[in-house]
Amino acid sequence: MKIAIAQLNPTIGDLTGNAQQILDAAQTAAAQGARLLLTTELSLCGYPPRDLLMQPSFLATMAETLAQLARDLPAELAVLVGTVLPNPDAVHDGEKPLFNTTALLLEGEVQRYFHKRLLPTYDVFDEDRYFEPGEESSAFELDGVWIGVTICEDLWNDESFWGKRHYEVNPIAELNRQGVDLMVNLSASPYSVGKQHLRETMLRHSATRYGQPILYANQVGGNDDLLFDGCSFGLNRAGEVVLRAKPFESDLIFAEFDPAVDELMPAAIAPSPDCADAEIWMALVMGVRDYVRKCGFQKAVLGLSGGIDSALVAAIAAAALGSENVLGVLMPSPYSSDHSITDALELAKNLGIQTQTIPIAPMMQGYDQALADLFAGTEFGIAEENLQSRLRGTLLMAISNKFGHLLISTGNKSEVAVGYCTLYGDMNGGLAAIADVPKTRVYSLCKWLNKAMKDELGGMHRNSYSSFIPHPASFPLIPPHIIAKPPSAELKPGQVDQDSLPPYEVLDDILERFVERHQAPDEIVAAGHDAAVVNQVIRLVTRAEFKRKQAAPGLKITDRAFGTGWRMPIASRWLPSTQPKAPQPVV
Amino acid sequence: MKIAIAQLNPTIGDLTGNAQQILDAAQTAAAQGARLLLTTELSLCGYPPRDLLMQPSFLATMAETLAQLARDLPAELAVLVGTVLPNPDAVHDGEKPLFNTTALLLEGEVQRYFHKRLLPTYDVFDEDRYFEPGEESSAFELDGVWIGVTICEDLWNDESFWGKRHYEVNPIAELNRQGVDLMVNLSASPYSVGKQHLRETMLRHSATRYGQPILYANQVGGNDDLLFDGCSFGLNRAGEVVLRAKPFESDLIFAEFDPAVDELMPAAIAPSPDCADAEIWMALVMGVRDYVRKCGFQKAVLGLSGGIDSALVAAIAAAALGSENVLGVLMPSPYSSDHSITDALELAKNLGIQTQTIPIAPMMQGYDQALADLFAGTEFGIAEENLQSRLRGTLLMAISNKFGHLLISTGNKSEVAVGYCTLYGDMNGGLAAIADVPKTRVYSLCKWLNKAMKDELGGMHRNSYSSFIPHPASFPLIPPHIIAKPPSAELKPGQVDQDSLPPYEVLDDILERFVERHQAPDEIVAAGHDAAVVNQVIRLVTRAEFKRKQAAPGLKITDRAFGTGWRMPIASRWLPSTQPKAPQPVV
Repeated sequence: MKIAIAQLNPTIGDLTGNAQQILDAAQTAAAQGARLLLTTELSLCGYPPRDLLMQPSFLATMAETLAQLARDLPAELAVLVGTVLPNPDAVHDGEKPLFNTTALLLEGEVQRYFHKRLLPTYDVFDEDRYFEPGEESSAFELDGVWIGVTICEDLWNDESFWGKRHYEVNPIAELNRQGVDLMVNLSASPYSVGKQHLRETMLRHSATRYGQPILYANQVGGNDDLLFDGCSFGLNRAGEVVLRAKPFESDLIFAEFDPAVDELMPAAIAPSPDCADAEIWMALVMGVRDYVRKCGFQKAVLGLSGGIDSALVAAIAAAALGSENVLGVLMPSPYSSDHSITDALELAKNLGIQTQTIPIAPMMQGYDQALADLFAGTEFGIAEENLQSRLRGTLLMAISNKFGHLLISTGNKSEVAVGYCTLYGDMNGGLAAIADVPKTRVYSLCKWLNKAMKDELGGMHRNSYSSFIPHPASFPLIPPHIIAKPPSAELKPGQVDQDSLPPYEVLDDILERFVERHQAPDEIVAAGHDAAVVNQVIRLVTRAEFKRKQAAPGLKITDRAFGTGWRMPIASRWLPSTQPKAPQPVV
Repeated sequence: MKIAIAQLNPTIGDLTGNAQQILDAAQTAAAQGARLLLTTELSLCGYPPRDLLMQPSFLATMAETLAQLARDLPAELAVLVGTVLPNPDAVHDGEKPLFNTTALLLEGEVQRYFHKRLLPTYDVFDEDRYFEPGEESSAFELDGVWIGVTICEDLWNDESFWGKRHYEVNPIAELNRQGVDLMVNLSASPYSVGKQHLRETMLRHSATRYGQPILYANQVGGNDDLLFDGCSFGLNRAGEVVLRAKPFESDLIFAEFDPAVDELMPAAIAPSPDCADAEIWMALVMGVRDYVRKCGFQKAVLGLSGGIDSALVAAIAAAALGSENVLGVLMPSPYSSDHSITDALELAKNLGIQTQTIPIAPMMQGYDQALADLFAGTEFGIAEENLQSRLRGTLLMAISNKFGHLLISTGNKSEVAVGYCTLYGDMNGGLAAIADVPKTRVYSLCKWLNKAMKDELGGMHRNSYSSFIPHPASFPLIPPHIIAKPPSAELKPGQVDQDSLPPYEVLDDILERFVERHQAPDEIVAAGHDAAVVNQVIRLVTRAEFKRKQAAPGLKITDRAFGTGWRMPIASRWLPSTQPKAPQPVV
């Protein structure tokens, strides 16, 4: 039995366009003799649809679109489509109003629905907000083959792999007891560094534990902050990967299931990215491309400071949109070094992007004069530093508004974490491309871009990178001086980042432990960090909450990004500290 | 049996300070002969603690603080404290890691825990993210009286009141079957217009249905976007309100339960606000006061345009913080009318607040010159309008940064809904005071302020308003011309809001139906609105999502505010419309 996997890149809420993608894949699959087509979780509306699910007209149109799609599909092809279904018992039994479900479309009709059983409600996920969990195992028979249907999280509860349960039931185990021949999964599993390795390791464990071949179809593409890496794959009963789709691109791949031996046969396996930097690069390029495109823009603008963050973002944007669609704006001040201009211009030349240069000294003087009386007798400080950043942000937004370019902001995760950034200044933008990329990773990405990426282009399958390279471009993409010089915001004479912050190697390790791994301050100190530095960093992170509240969406690449998965109060008095907060007697 | 209710205003995460509040209330209650003290939901950490619940040091310190509080409390007083408790079965059974619970403290120790059973996960609530529902009814015996303990949502599932179930179980019914004498509830129930009327109506239904006296203790105060109105109250078995605490202020009130007749006796009933405007005014004053105070600020700054929105916000800020702590900044442009200055100065005089005036023409020219080459040949448009707003926002932030005043933004809900506001411009601020107040309500609040509030000061109990009035102030607070003139952003000559938007009466009704009541476009048209206008408004709302994503927290006063209860994708193609989106055959 030939089975196709459509690794789709839906746009949220584009019901007609998403249905068209499914139909196109189905027609190709049918032409190639497939009997079954898997799509991805909520493939009809895109994942995550969020509160669109509360709009009655959205639900009604989705149901109509599904029915129409069933009629339009090749009649002989069974197609699994991700959609939502109203829960008829919601009002009577006090349940949630919808199911996150998979529809089996065949012979012009919706034949069955299979509901998602495990609903993630943590990190970026809010599924309990909308959905009631399905209570029954889901399987159907096709040409004598019993196929178990699961949706994303349903496969993420193997207690012998995790060493603990995340939910009471394990749908794989139940389906296995029912004797299904093949397990399929429709996913929208967001990317983070190393996620595909985790998926394959986890499902290898389940495939071998239950002696069960598994086909896993994952969404691809960027939807706001969330990136989906695709990498749909299949495992045979021995837990071997027998097929895999491309990372970070739409794909249509084929599996062959042999009913005689109840096993998946070897098929084409797309190469994985060679290293974490390659993976992150592709993720960010895809994320910028999809956000710009899905928001209806063609072009982007960004500020070029001559520093490494804006250099990386410019390279990402050029790769994502084409060099001709990126405008870099240089806005030197009297505090800017000469190299900030020369480095930025060299970068732009390497990338083939256009630039504009607008010195900001006249506007700085305008603000200084306007505020002279009010600020008389005060020292140069944060207010004056932020002014420079804000007037640059205002210029960039003027250009964005005038020409319809999307402004991309360039702050990295280390800065955003400790608040080393200006709200309404350099934080301006519709998308924060590298807001989840720690500064140390910014460096390694730039070094990889300059050396390894170029080298690897010769060595590996050309297709794997060809959609992810700036055209035209000359290597090294990032001028070496940008990588070599000490990072500086250049908002006052002689300023460098390390005047205010610990070295980035130290800062990033503390941040990873605190933000991503939820470690307590004492645990971080026990890992070898200085207590005073740990407390300083955590204090900065805590106090910068108000800035992050107003940040643009940032592309998520780590296990915990600031954004929808980070929900902190602002007006809070809690400050974690290595000093054990022994409760004082309250008298 | 004398029972006290401590209507507390906790600061999120201020474990020591919140414990001190509980101790202070307990000492007063004990001195007055109380046997039992109720506090509010999660009174130890404040509600909602959000992702602080993921920090291990926060949980550890909370447990230590609770144990210390138990030792510090008057030993003979039973005290119900809201806290969290780790779920020991989480790992083994795949459950959530915590319980939202009530600790019974007595004789120096924690005696019992009673877990919340119904966990709201909708609108602004995310309790399934953290908590496992309790499975057992919760009751304890004190001096022969059986007291059933419930937490907030536990009382919100009376299917005969709502006409439907929201959850499978109804804790009131179970406790009633177990024969409890008195039901108590620890709540953190957020304010929205008319919420207290709903609470009393709903609990009156339950009290009479089950013949059960109920004591309801509600949190008070502002925590970021959420406002808690207090209004703790008690109902006897006949469903009569027999006691009530003050609205929008901390309070300590006493109930008398007579075990001989199993009934609550009549006690003191604080007056309710006289009308919706009074209620909203108090809510907003409390919200601004608490946000500023809990963020560690004393003073606030805002832009005074001479328009009605900034007039209302200035009055709120003066009432919340004291007139001496509010700075109004006038930033006239060449497009500003004369009255924008005179009206703003008259307002400031009425409120007794300081002003600064900074004309922006020189800075506008600076930007125009800087952008002259790039913008050559283009028309004056959105870019130039936004520039004015952004340079004003930049000036306000410079003042905020220089003097440590919190910037309060002044946009109303109607503007924020349709995107009639400038990101990084007039949207700048740490708090958006009236972001959930529709424009029509802005008018009614100002009229109420000028007339009814003054009149009512004579008529009703002075205490009800004394904390909510600007000092010093002269009436009418809002200059009548500000209320009378047509609203305008004054960003180009002769501009008025109604050039771009439908009349506010129409706009606000459409918005309420679409945003708060989740009505489909066809339903809104059926209510009497023009289809083209409905589609225009919904298109504007949908396209402004990127602005709201980066907005400051806004004080929630309606059933659905933009903010934590509104979770929409940005890069989405869904646009609800009265044209039924009949799915086209996808060929």
